[in-house]
This record gives sequence, C-alpha cells and structure tokens, in this order.
Amino acid sequence: MSRIDGRTADQLRPVTIERGWSKHAEGSVLVSFGDTRVLCTASVTEGVPRWRRGSGEGWVTAEYAMLPRATNTRGDRESVRGKIGGRTHEISRLIGRSLRAVVDFRALGENTVVLDCDVLQADGGTRTAAITGAYVALADAVAWGRGRKLIKGRNEPLTGQVAAVSVGIVDGTPLLDLAYTEDVRAGTDMNVVCTDSGAFVEVQGTAEGAPFQRAELDALLDLAAGGCARLAEAQRAALAESA
Amino acid sequence: MSRIDGRTADQLRPVTIERGWSKHAEGSVLVSFGDTRVLCTASVTEGVPRWRRGSGEGWVTAEYAMLPRATNTRGDRESVRGKIGGRTHEISRLIGRSLRAVVDFRALGENTVVLDCDVLQADGGTRTAAITGAYVALADAVAWGRGRKLIKGRNEPLTGQVAAVSVGIVDGTPLLDLAYTEDVRAGTDMNVVCTDSGAFVEVQGTAEGAPFQRAELDALLDLAAGGCARLAEAQRAALAESA
Amino acid sequence: MSRIDGRTADQLRPVTIERGWSKHAEGSVLVSFGDTRVLCTASVTEGVPRWRRGSGEGWVTAEYAMLPRATNTRGDRESVRGKIGGRTHEISRLIGRSLRAVVDFRALGENTVVLDCDVLQADGGTRTAAITGAYVALADAVAWGRGRKLIKGRNEPLTGQVAAVSVGIVDGTPLLDLAYTEDVRAGTDMNVVCTDSGAFVEVQGTAEGAPFQRAELDALLDLAAGGCARLAEAQRAALAESA
Amino acid sequence: MSRIDGRTADQLRPVTIERGWSKHAEGSVLVSFGDTRVLCTASVTEGVPRWRRGSGEGWVTAEYAMLPRATNTRGDRESVRGKIGGRTHEISRLIGRSLRAVVDFRALGENTVVLDCDVLQADGGTRTAAITGAYVALADAVAWGRGRKLIKGRNEPLTGQVAAVSVGIVDGTPLLDLAYTEDVRAGTDMNVVCTDSGAFVEVQGTAEGAPFQRAELDALLDLAAGGCARLAEAQRAALAESA
Amino acid sequence: MSRIDGRTADQLRPVTIERGWSKHAEGSVLVSFGDTRVLCTASVTEGVPRWRRGSGEGWVTAEYAMLPRATNTRGDRESVRGKIGGRTHEISRLIGRSLRAVVDFRALGENTVVLDCDVLQADGGTRTAAITGAYVALADAVAWGRGRKLIKGRNEPLTGQVAAVSVGIVDGTPLLDLAYTEDVRAGTDMNVVCTDSGAFVEVQGTAEGAPFQRAELDALLDLAAGGCARLAEAQRAALAESA
Amino acid sequence: MSRIDGRTADQLRPVTIERGWSKHAEGSVLVSFGDTRVLCTASVTEGVPRWRRGSGEGWVTAEYAMLPRATNTRGDRESVRGKIGGRTHEISRLIGRSLRAVVDFRALGENTVVLDCDVLQADGGTRTAAITGAYVALADAVAWGRGRKLIKGRNEPLTGQVAAVSVGIVDGTPLLDLAYTEDVRAGTDMNVVCTDSGAFVEVQGTAEGAPFQRAELDALLDLAAGGCARLAEAQRAALAESA
Repeated sequence: MSRIDGRTADQLRPVTIERGWSKHAEGSVLVSFGDTRVLCTASVTEGVPRWRRGSGEGWVTAEYAMLPRATNTRGDRESVRGKIGGRTHEISRLIGRSLRAVVDFRALGENTVVLDCDVLQADGGTRTAAITGAYVALADAVAWGRGRKLIKGRNEPLTGQVAAVSVGIVDGTPLLDLAYTEDVRAGTDMNVVCTDSGAFVEVQGTAEGAPFQRAELDALLDLAAGGCARLAEAQRAALAESA
Repeated sequence: MSRIDGRTADQLRPVTIERGWSKHAEGSVLVSFGDTRVLCTASVTEGVPRWRRGSGEGWVTAEYAMLPRATNTRGDRESVRGKIGGRTHEISRLIGRSLRAVVDFRALGENTVVLDCDVLQADGGTRTAAITGAYVALADAVAWGRGRKLIKGRNEPLTGQVAAVSVGIVDGTPLLDLAYTEDVRAGTDMNVVCTDSGAFVEVQGTAEGAPFQRAELDALLDLAAGGCARLAEAQRAALAESA
Repeated sequence: MSRIDGRTADQLRPVTIERGWSKHAEGSVLVSFGDTRVLCTASVTEGVPRWRRGSGEGWVTAEYAMLPRATNTRGDRESVRGKIGGRTHEISRLIGRSLRAVVDFRALGENTVVLDCDVLQADGGTRTAAITGAYVALADAVAWGRGRKLIKGRNEPLTGQVAAVSVGIVDGTPLLDLAYTEDVRAGTDMNVVCTDSGAFVEVQGTAEGAPFQRAELDALLDLAAGGCARLAEAQRAALAESA
Repeated sequence: MSRIDGRTADQLRPVTIERGWSKHAEGSVLVSFGDTRVLCTASVTEGVPRWRRGSGEGWVTAEYAMLPRATNTRGDRESVRGKIGGRTHEISRLIGRSLRAVVDFRALGENTVVLDCDVLQADGGTRTAAITGAYVALADAVAWGRGRKLIKGRNEPLTGQVAAVSVGIVDGTPLLDLAYTEDVRAGTDMNVVCTDSGAFVEVQGTAEGAPFQRAELDALLDLAAGGCARLAEAQRAALAESA
Repeated sequence: MSRIDGRTADQLRPVTIERGWSKHAEGSVLVSFGDTRVLCTASVTEGVPRWRRGSGEGWVTAEYAMLPRATNTRGDRESVRGKIGGRTHEISRLIGRSLRAVVDFRALGENTVVLDCDVLQADGGTRTAAITGAYVALADAVAWGRGRKLIKGRNEPLTGQVAAVSVGIVDGTPLLDLAYTEDVRAGTDMNVVCTDSGAFVEVQGTAEGAPFQRAELDALLDLAAGGCARLAEAQRAALAESA
Repeated sequence: MSRIDGRTADQLRPVTIERGWSKHAEGSVLVSFGDTRVLCTASVTEGVPRWRRGSGEGWVTAEYAMLPRATNTRGDRESVRGKIGGRTHEISRLIGRSLRAVVDFRALGENTVVLDCDVLQADGGTRTAAITGAYVALADAVAWGRGRKLIKGRNEPLTGQVAAVSVGIVDGTPLLDLAYTEDVRAGTDMNVVCTDSGAFVEVQGTAEGAPFQRAELDALLDLAAGGCARLAEAQRAALAESA
C-alpha cells in the first residue's frame, strides 16, 4: 500500500530544523515536518517560580498555541474567547514534561526556560514537531546561558535529547508520522516521545475507532522508536551547524 | 517486596460500586478504589449539541472535578478561580473518549448523556475510578432511556464495557493500582483503559523520573490488562444486582 | 392539613449528622435534612488573609456549591461557565457570616478555617443544612487545632452553636423545614439562623408571591426558633459521639 | 440620645426623588437619601428572555453597581476585575425581586423592563434608596409603555408601590435609615422592603456583632414599617408632579 | 448651512463644569458638552504602581465607562459581560495619555491619581468632554494633595492645561464639537487634544466614509485648535470659582 | 544627521511582501519592514455577522496579536491571562477600519473576510506593517473568492489600495518608518494610513514627550504621505508577481 505522498509506512516526512529564526529569543527554531511548521522560541530568565525558590534548581515549561488560520478552517483565538481550550492545555503540558525529562535542574541553577511553540501551519503532528523543535531551541538557550555565565554550574544541564513522533493505524496498516489526511482516517493514534538512547518518555495512544490489540500496540511502538531515532539524528545535525 | 497496604504487586485495592446513589440522576454510582471515592452521575437529555443535529446520532461527554478538600491540602475551587485547570480538562476529555469507545451512537439516537465525575475523596487513581464507575452509571442511564422509550432503537447502544486502572514502576517494581503514596514515588506512571474483551482504548504512560525501557512498558501493560479484566467483572457484578 | 411526607407543620425532616466523613479534612460532616445531603469539610491553615495579618485574630469563611446533578435537572458547572452565580455567592456569604457569629477570633489566633459545603443531593433547605452541618465540622476542626496546639489560646474559640432552618407559608399555612416540592409552592420563604441560646443571627424572608403580613412573619419566626432549637440538640448529640 | 446629624431615632434623612433625569431612558430618577445618591433608569424593550417566551407575561429585572469613587476609598471596577462581586450580585437580585412583587406580569405583556441602579455617591442605605427610586422609574416607564401602546392590556401592570429602608441597632438603640457612620457601628443591620399597604416583601436582618433578641427584631420591624410608609408618600408626591 | 441645534460651524455646545460634585473624591467634576454629561472623579493615593516604585516619580491614569442607559439603547454592562470592550480600553488609554502630557511626575512625587470618567448621558463627544472635565478634577486633586502636604515638592505638578474637542466633516462641511446626530453622519471624525498653549497632544482622525484630503485635514485642525482654546478658558473660569 | 541603520530621514526600511505563505488561507502574506515580520492571513467565509444579515453587504474585520517572544522580553500570552489587552484591541480595530476604507461591501456580497495579523518578530511599526501586508492578503482573498464565484458581483470589491507607515520626531528631526530603538526615543509618534490616491484614512498622532506644534505635524504628514506612496508601489509589485 502506498501513502498519499508516496512514503513507505515507516518513512518520516521531510524534516527541517532552522535555528536562529528570531533575533530576540535565546534559542529559536522553525521546525517543519512536511507541511507542519512550528516556531519554537526559548526564553531564559533568571529566577524560578515561587514554589521552587531557594531550591537551587531551575525550571523548564512550555506553551503551545496555534495561529487562527494554521488550519484549513479558521479557529477562534483563545485570547478572544478568554480561555485556553482543553487540547491546548494538554499539549502544553506534554511538551513541558517531555523536555523536563532530559534536564538536570540542579545543573541549570535557579533559572527558568520557557518554550513557546506556535504552530504557523498545521498538517498533522504539530505536537511532535513542537517537541522535536523545542529541544533544539532549548539546547541553544542553554548554551547561550552557559556562555553568558548565567548558568554557572560545571555540569551540562541537558542529560540527553528528546524527540517525538506520531504513529497510527490507517486501514489496518501501522504508519509512521501521520499527515493530517491520514490522521483523520486513523483508527488508532499514538504520540510517542523518546530520548536519543531509545527509552520512552511518553506514550499516549488512543483508539479513535475500534479498540486496539496488544500486537498492534507493539507494532506502533516499534515504528515510533525508529522514527524518534532518525529525528534525534536530525537534531544533532542541526546543532552541529553554526547557528 | 510488600506494599504499604500489604497488597501484592498485581492486586487491586478493594473496589466498591454503589448504584442508585442519587435520587435525581438517570444513573448514579459511588465508586471507590480503596480510599478514592468518586460520585458518577449520568444525565440524559433529548437532543444533541448543535454540530451533531440531524445526524441521527447521539453524544456522550464527561466532566471531572475534585471537591476542594478531596485532597490532603485544600485546593482552590476552579469556579472561584474562574477557569478550568489543564489537569481537569485533560481528565474530562479522557473519560469522555473512553466511554465513547463503547457507544453505538446510532443506536443511542439523538440523545445526549453527560457523565459528571466528582471526586469526593482522593487517594490516587481518581481518573481510573471515575471511568470505571462512569461506565456503570452510563449503563443504568441507557437502560433508563430504553425503558422510557426515549432511546427508541432496537440495538443496544453499549457495545461493550470499559474500565481503567493505573500502573507504575515504584523502586524498580511494576505495581497495579497505585495509591497516592505509591504514585508520588513512581518513576513511571501509566493509565490504561480497556474494554471487557481485553482490547486497549487508551494507553497514557509518562516517565516522571528516568525514561522507561520497552521491557518495563510491556510488564506494565500486562499488569494493567489483568487489572482491567477484574474491574470489568466487578462492573458486571454490580449491574447484576437490582439497583 | 397533612404534608406531602406526612409531617406536621412544625416537624423537621429526619436529620442525620455523620462526622469524620473524609480522611483528609480537619473536620468533615455529611449532613442530611431528608433527601438533602451536603458534605461539609473544614480546612484549617495557619495564617490569615492579608488584610487581617498582625491583628492576632483568626478568620472563618465558607464556600457553597452544588454538584451539577444534585438537582432534578442538570445545571452547568460554574467552573465551566467561568463565573460564580449570584445565588452561590449569596449562600456562601450567608454561611460564612452565620458561623462567624459564634467565633471568638482572638481565641482562634491567626488561623483560618475554610468551610466547604458541597451539595451532593438537593431537596430544599440546602443552605440551612449546610450551616447546621458546617457548625459541627467547624467544631471538630477547632478541637483538632487545639489538640495539635495550633490554636494556642486558653479560651474556647467557639462561643456557642449555630444552626439554621427554612420556614414558609404554603397554601396559607406556616410550615417548618420545607422540602423542595413545598418550597416551590411557598408564597413566603424564610431562612432563619439562630444560636443555641435562641437569639437570631440572620433572618431572610422573601415574598415569592403575595407580600406577607406582620402576623405571618411572627408565626414563621416562632416556628423557626423551635426548629433551630431541635437542630442544636442534634448537633450536640452528634458531637457527643466519638468521631 | 441624639444622632450624628441631629435626627431622632425614627426619622428619615432628607429624601429627594428627581424624575426625568436622563433624556434617553423610558423612566429615570435621581434619588437621594441624605448624601446617598443613586441614578435609577428604566429601559423598556419588547420581548422577554428566552425561558419566558410565549407565556404572555413580561419580565422585570435589575442591575446595581457603584461608581468606583462613590465611596470614601476608591474601589476597583468590576468590569476591570472581570467579575461581579458577591455583594453586587446580591443587591441586584434583591432589587429585582422587590420590584417584581408589585408587577402583574400578564398586564405587562411580553415586555421587559430593566432597572439600572448606579450609585453615584454612597453614604449608607444605597440598596434601599435604589429600590425606592427604581419603583418611581419603573412607574414612569410603564406609563410610557402604556402611552405608546407597547403595553396593550387594559389592566395597570403595577399592583402597588414598593419602598425600602434600613434599620439597625446602634449602641443598643434601634434607629431608622442608617447613615454610613451609623451603619459601621451597628450591631444588627436590617433592610426591609414594604408595599404601600404595609405588607412585607423582604426582611433581611443580620447580626454584625452579638445575635439579636426577638424583642429587638420586633422594634426594628416597627421602625421600618413606619419609614417605608413615609417613603411611599414621597414616591406618590414625586409621581404627582408633571415629569 | 445651519446645524440641527442652530449653532454655527465653529461653535461649541454650551459647556458647564461643576466642581465639587462628590463629597468623597479629592477632585470631582460634572462636565457637560450640551447633553453629554460625564462625572469625572480624581482619587489620590500615596504610592505608585510596582514598576515605578523607587523612581521618585508619580503616576496618573484614567478609566472611562458608560452607564448602561447613557445611550439611546441600553448597552450591556461590561462587568456583567466579564470584559472591557475595545472602545472602552481605547478611550481610557487616550484620557490617561492626554492628562499625563501636562504632568511633571517628579513634582508629583510617588503619588498616584486615578481619574474615573463615567458617562451619565451620552450625546456625542463623550471622550472629549471626559478629558476636559478630568483635567479640572485633576487640578483640584493636585491642589488638595499640596494642601495636605502629601505632594511635597516645591514645583507645581501641572505644567499646563489640557482640553479636547471633536471635529468632523458633515455633508462636506467641517464642523466643531459634533452632537450624536451629526457624528453618525460625519464622513470624517477627528478628536483633538491640545494644551492651553495651542500645541497638540493627540490627533486622531478617521475616515468613516470617503478618505479625506490634506486640505480637509488642515481645516479640521484649525477648527479644533480654536475650540480647545475656548475650552481652556472655560476650565480657567471654573477653577477661578471657589469650589 | 544619520540614523542608526544609515537611512536618510525620509527613507523606508527594506520592505518585503511574500505572498502565498500559508497553504490553508485564501490569502496569506509574510510582510517585513526591516526586522519587523508579520504573518497576515485572510480567511473568507460565506455569510456575515448577525447584525448585517440580509443587507446584501459583506464585512471585513481584523485581529492583531504578538507571539510572546516577538519582542526583546517575553510577554505573557493574552490567552493565558484570559483577556485581550487594550493595545491589542486598539490595533485590531485600526487594521479593520483601515481595510474597510477601500472595500465596496455591496460588491463583496454577504461574505466575510477576517484578516489575522500575527507579529512573529517586532522591531517597531508592527501595526503599519500589518495594515500594508493585510491589504495584499485581502486582495488575494478577494481574487480567490471571485475566481470561485463565491463573490458573484460584477464590480471589483476593492476600490483602492491602503498602506500605512509610522513617522515621528526624534531629537527634533521628523523621521519616516521608525525602528524600535528610534520609536522609544521619539517625542511624537504618528501612524498614518493612506490610500494609493494619497488621501488619508487614519491619522493618529501622540505626543509622547512635549506636545507638538502645527508645523511639526505638517512635516510629519508630508513624510508619511511619501512613505505610503512607496509602500503602495511595493504592494502593486508584489501583486503583479504570480503567487
């Protein structure tokens, strides 16, 4: 079976990671997974939220949002509606947790990094692109902080890389990195976040249609692990270039 | 290794499912998983949300909340703060999706069932208790609707049962149905929703501490599937009693 | 004239006051007036709101809410609507004022007690049941605080008991403790809060239909005073048991 | 004992009722009780809220607010804070209920009158001045509607007059129509709404300090009834003038 | 061409500036431009907002609002809707900026003056009447502060006067100080804020219909400058009276 | 005097207008004025807001927002704060009014175009870049609608072009198109919106420091008119390319 864009079942869409996209942020990346484009900026500030003061440990958090016309049909702005929707909340929390999995907060010191992930164009996989791009923005921000001696410790605050990819079962076939048209047809949809060592940080699988069997789950996890490994390579390649 | 309350690693806490708890709701259940107590009410109304009108299909949705002093420390009311928190949103959405996995919306007809899951006392596993109890309240509400000929179709609107349980790795050991004191020490925490046929509806695993390996993930899924099967039995036993 | 549930005009519905309902709260009571059931929890914290700091005096406040399906028809959650309704505000303020009438704030010291009164099932008289139950939860919380030496003073912080009951004129007859079906037919509706010494803390009477005459008002006040005295007895009986 | 402004215990402050204050509203009154000044406008619109459509009956509602610097210390605007406070809600509801007590909704037809009561200057008794002035604005608005044949029925929609006054116990003495400096010293504070026939529409008494005895309550009710009768006279006098 | 109220093109409506309207505020003015009536109160408090603390400089800010029935059709209260509209925000900011143009913040010392401008009746030009009246209220408040030695500096904190007027092109003719019926017909609408020395503080011109030519803009600026000069006179006359 | 980036006083920053930036929107432009980058998307929908239905006329509106890290210091998200700030409101309204000045609503038919202007990077002049770019996105969206026969009329709905530029007085010198570092030093700041025929749509001038004289105002208007003419050329050049 061939996919709509000619990919094989275990193939990622073209991935680009463009560093230094913004002149203001300490780290900034325009990441694309096919037609999905997310602007990730990392903002470093001295100090931590009140509940963490005096701990000697830093904090990393994230906010995700979509521009109103990132999608095929214009959505209302959450600022105009006056509240954050459930999906936005959920994804912001997922991105934050995923990044924190590779941060040594003691090495970061009492500094905070906020990752803003704004979807400029959506075509499936916005949360996984956001995590993958945000890691690179975070790495640049941490390097900036160490260069400026704002982050003073001897140890590298990042203990590994983190990347994410979606997988799903479409017409009975497990597929990697679903585009939007595949996503809407998927009976099961899973987002997987891995470290570069191949361990899992998050596994979120949902039966959109029929519940899924253990064997299907296993096949999806295999696909996802492979996809994350290739995304980790892409992150390393991006970080190897001079920004 | 023995657990704080003497359970074995693959043992559930005592489960009670008390039907007919409220005189007003079409279905109502007070469910307890150990000291976790959740009041689940099912409210049936004719008609569906605007976006579904004229489709001939019904709708099922859920709202989860905690009483302010359900927990050890009093939390602010979300009504007073004026907004729903991210965690509340996330769990409400999870409960709704889980229940919808076993609903035949055409058989339900253009009727809506709202499941309210209010945590009266929390001791870990509130979302899994809520799903498990809400299914029973939903079953009672559907039976009520069929009895009243509000739900007119010939087919049973519920295509199966759905139950949920938490699993986690504590001090290197995979454990079933974590109590709060276990939950806070868990390196990995997973919520699993299954049908009574043993298929998966939702798998949500999070590395709170170190990322987890595939073998650990497999062990947790085995534990959860076993736990869900026993919860489905408890649901059937409760529904077998006269309400 | 006999009432719907066979009571005489000056008879209370069956009252139960179940202490120690929650394992977390410093005081907790499940109170029922007939089918009206309210969970009252008392949360003690050191310190007082900003405007009272340094005064040497404590503070007592209350929040009232209804579960969405406590009533015959499901109501929207105030947390979802994003604002507290006028009725909720009004009742929360009434409960707080009523309890404060029997508190010696100097004896309480700079501690705060928050009473949460959540209506699990409503059948008329939710605010009066809430006040009556909240007093017992407050008494348990104060005893807890004195036992823990959090409340250090020599004097008992509670200067008396407080209880409340509704009265109303239905088809020309003054009745005590209206059930919901009576309440909707009442021409005049009054909530009365008394101390155990028979003095008034609050009198709130409203003509729902025809305005009421002074003689009717007098009859209602007599009924209410008698009802409150019996509720104060029930409170003493509950507090006499070991929790 | 003489009062701060030389009044006797049963004397009202000077009352003025200035009709036709606004050129836009169908009824408008600037009412003053001493230094308390409230602008009451009545807005008539065809139609009723959704829940009342097709009933053949009208509706009357009220909104109360204070200008930020109506008081001695500037208060935050509720529009800026983004929510209505409990006190504002409570008073708006009281005014609406009080006026509805003298409205024949069938005679009003499916029309709505909204009474806006905005406190321009506060010196105690703002809610009672608002009710007293709003009645006159309502009367003008109803006359306007009948003149325009918007209100078509044969029967007069107003079945009587309604007026309100505060009473309280200050240093042991029951006093009528408390000014702000008296109000803050009052042990018991009561607002009473009466019809011109001397019947009660609302009685709201609160022990700010010590609970009050039945004899005190009786004395306050006597004072209030006398005060309301004189306010009803002032309303009639104002309405007798050509607007 | 004669205007609806008989004015010439360059004539202001009757202007009244009534000082000392409120007994509570440090400065208060009821200003009218024809039928437009705005109550402006100035509230002085010691201290400045957080971002200005320790600067030695004061702050002046403004809030504008309309009573619901200030206009021909009743508008919803912004407090009830739970948010400030764009127009309200815009005008509040304009008033604040305009007044700050004539304040020497160092001479004011670390004190804050809040100007509340509440429109009691609207008939065009509410924002310009508000600025013109607020200046006088500010002047009274500053004088009060200097008299009380709250404002301690030697220098006068007000460096000049500020007044505002609207101008517009109606049926091809430039007109000064538009009444509401003129405003809705104006093709171009401009609000101009000037100091008493004739310099410009704000110029806000909008083409409601056809874009305007440079010559038209020049004619409007000439009219506005003349109008502001006469308003500055009226301010001086009002301030010359004893309050 | 030479400017920070070497420009002459009457020189624009480099302007780029990149059409077709988004695959979803009916019109989309990434516009840059130097380092200021704004993504403008135009969304066409059939139908108009309720208040305009049945009029035969269309509607055009705009929403402006900044990404949190578009600026040098990260700003809070308005969606998280739960309300739109005054500045955002003001600019959204300005953009909408400016575009509507060149729309023939009858020719547009009952269709709505929403312009979303999201600032990806800010360096002064974000509102003027937004207007200039949004016009081009609107032109593309209108052409799309005419091509699809959604816009059915014979007449072109756009009656002209609209562009905007900022001008200001820095150290006594009138300058065109201020960059951020110039803007913060400007004594007077003005935004001017013109049509391609050189007429004015909006003139908004503000004295940030000293009030400005008529001669200065005239000089600024001259500069702005010249700048707008060159921006209109850039718009035409962009629209001449195939998208």
